[in-house]
Amino acid sequence: VPDAAALDAADPLAAFRDRFVPTPGRIYLDGNSLGRPPRETAARLATRAAEWADRLVTAWPDWVDEPRRIGDALAEHVIGARHGEVLVADSTTVNLFKLAAAVLAADPERRRVVVTDPGNFPTDRYVLGALAAEIRWVEHPTPDTVAAACEPGDVALASFGHVDYRTGERLDLAGITAAARAAGATPVLWDLSHSAGAIAVDLHAAGAELAVGCTYKYLNAGPGAPGYLYVREDLHSRLRSPIAGWFGQRDQFAMGPAYDPEPSIARFHAGTPPVLGLPAVEEGVRLMAQAGVEALEAKAAALTGFALELADSYLAAHGFTAVTPRDPARRGAHVALRHERAWPACQALAARGVIADFRAPDILRLGLPPLSTSYADVETGIGHLRELMAAREFDHFPARRPRVT
Amino acid sequence: VPDAAALDAADPLAAFRDRFVPTPGRIYLDGNSLGRPPRETAARLATRAAEWADRLVTAWPDWVDEPRRIGDALAEHVIGARHGEVLVADSTTVNLFKLAAAVLAADPERRRVVVTDPGNFPTDRYVLGALAAEIRWVEHPTPDTVAAACEPGDVALASFGHVDYRTGERLDLAGITAAARAAGATPVLWDLSHSAGAIAVDLHAAGAELAVGCTYKYLNAGPGAPGYLYVREDLHSRLRSPIAGWFGQRDQFAMGPAYDPEPSIARFHAGTPPVLGLPAVEEGVRLMAQAGVEALEAKAAALTGFALELADSYLAAHGFTAVTPRDPARRGAHVALRHERAWPACQALAARGVIADFRAPDILRLGLPPLSTSYADVETGIGHLRELMAAREFDHFPARRPRVT
Repeated sequence: VPDAAALDAADPLAAFRDRFVPTPGRIYLDGNSLGRPPRETAARLATRAAEWADRLVTAWPDWVDEPRRIGDALAEHVIGARHGEVLVADSTTVNLFKLAAAVLAADPERRRVVVTDPGNFPTDRYVLGALAAEIRWVEHPTPDTVAAACEPGDVALASFGHVDYRTGERLDLAGITAAARAAGATPVLWDLSHSAGAIAVDLHAAGAELAVGCTYKYLNAGPGAPGYLYVREDLHSRLRSPIAGWFGQRDQFAMGPAYDPEPSIARFHAGTPPVLGLPAVEEGVRLMAQAGVEALEAKAAALTGFALELADSYLAAHGFTAVTPRDPARRGAHVALRHERAWPACQALAARGVIADFRAPDILRLGLPPLSTSYADVETGIGHLRELMAAREFDHFPARRPRVT
Repeated sequence: VPDAAALDAADPLAAFRDRFVPTPGRIYLDGNSLGRPPRETAARLATRAAEWADRLVTAWPDWVDEPRRIGDALAEHVIGARHGEVLVADSTTVNLFKLAAAVLAADPERRRVVVTDPGNFPTDRYVLGALAAEIRWVEHPTPDTVAAACEPGDVALASFGHVDYRTGERLDLAGITAAARAAGATPVLWDLSHSAGAIAVDLHAAGAELAVGCTYKYLNAGPGAPGYLYVREDLHSRLRSPIAGWFGQRDQFAMGPAYDPEPSIARFHAGTPPVLGLPAVEEGVRLMAQAGVEALEAKAAALTGFALELADSYLAAHGFTAVTPRDPARRGAHVALRHERAWPACQALAARGVIADFRAPDILRLGLPPLSTSYADVETGIGHLRELMAAREFDHFPARRPRVT
């Protein structure tokens, strides 16, 4: 096993760790669920609250463009989109709903068949399920399996998570997008929640048409921070949000009688954007832009590779199986370890100050956001897991996750 | 004209003005558009940001119930609903969409006819228009006119703003609700954005079934703060949100295969609630609870009455006509003055440090939130308007609102 200290010393992104608020007494390996706050964020949020107090409604002209301006930064520096194609708005769930419903409504001739993966993130499956007349499941989405599902020509939309939230597997963004188009003229709506800010994403290079994502995970914008949506420019005029809100209206404050959506990406707005929280999104995107996606990609590969090596060396003997792909190009920035005692082991880890998370039924997830995670964090965290397994500390915790009613 | 200083001295809510951040050099009469920050809010938001840094994802169990807990406070102290009937979530627009779509979907036998008012707030008209097969317009919603519109029995939903965002007219919440039910078995969805926190609202006493509202106006929760929704308990099991998001799922983190919505109000959640901003909503609601809706109602009546008196005395000679009803029970907490030069007059007022607002084509709106507005504010603001009209200061500003493209 390589030496964590040496890896940290050679890490070109090492300095970014100091850009986050420290977590004394804790090893935080759950940034894939909720990212850590950048040091600057609290001050920026306080400045925004002060601006509200000082300028009140007169600040609106400055605030109103922020969802597009921050979207432009995200587009350019994080996800490989163009200016005017990304909007920060609503939650990921609402954005997914808006784009999926817009696609289905744009092609009323076609049956509302939607292709997705039974392993897709729950909110995606639920939202798509409620919109679709039929879900056609593709269990291992590859260009071939997706093409086969779209081949009948009746599929209005396909939608996948770019990185599997459980296994960490990264799908072939370009290949699947092209295959769905070629096989069934089917657009693909990507969920970047577990990839953007963790690895290199280049939507235009991949030919992607539609995407949504989350800012509170790898983009570190805080709990419940808004999501974002991407619509390639040539599709703007063909798609209409099902939620015909006033922030999507052309010349909004004319408050005219009929709905006449903006020609731009702003047509996918619904209500008033969350102005108080937007500086946190901007700060999260700024850190990613400074690091650069190629550096993120390289460090994510190295960190997850290190974690997999440690899992093999330290944890295999305790019954853990890594389910994350061994090829770094096929994974994101988290590692999933399968174990029948994953739930109590995760609680025992937390008792030792190592925050990881559990995904039903049997996966322990270690999230390794490249900007805020050190190799030492990985080694210490997995070292604790080895120790607690040897000492059977999981026996002190309930064997199963309680059902929440 | 009564003496403003004497009215302020006798105001039982006068002490609440010190609970807001002062606005030196400014008279703020636009709290109906964006409310002023309570003094405590910045500290509470900072505490939340610190909690994110300190506790990270381990704070989720505490955060996750806040949208319901704050909803309960709003229910009990501000809008006359019961615990478990109000949820803070998404934007007002998205909430209106969710509830309107849920009602339309619940009764697929009925045509998707929706009754509303051409003077309803733009986002409401647009959202309803996109959902409905037909909009049946009712120009002056009263129990009689609404009953007539619902009589044919084909109306799936009626929806109105409780207080007209332009004229300040307050509709008959109880009478219209009962009339729509009686005439066509039609549920009414109320938008409380311009009433809750400004006047007394008692949804249960009015028999109201459904409502949405905004927290960034009279509830002072900050720009882009989330909205809320109310669904009377007996309707929970019959309505399903069209946005089948994971926060509405029963036992959410089981992440099960099928969508199985919460039996409770939480079924109207979509994505992750805006945790960073929720303390501002709680603080806004807390102030209202301390004041009490009856006191709000009394002061709103007195402040708007004073403004109307001043408008008659100071402004009628300059061509202003008050369009807000003279009966305080028939208005909210803002006053609308019609004038063909309303746009440039509003700009000239701003140049004097008096922030009011304009609603096309010819309305100058003076928002008088009862907790944060003094009688002196009203007199000073309207006094400035009189002076600038006499001096024709409006001539220094463009005659028409520029079209925003």
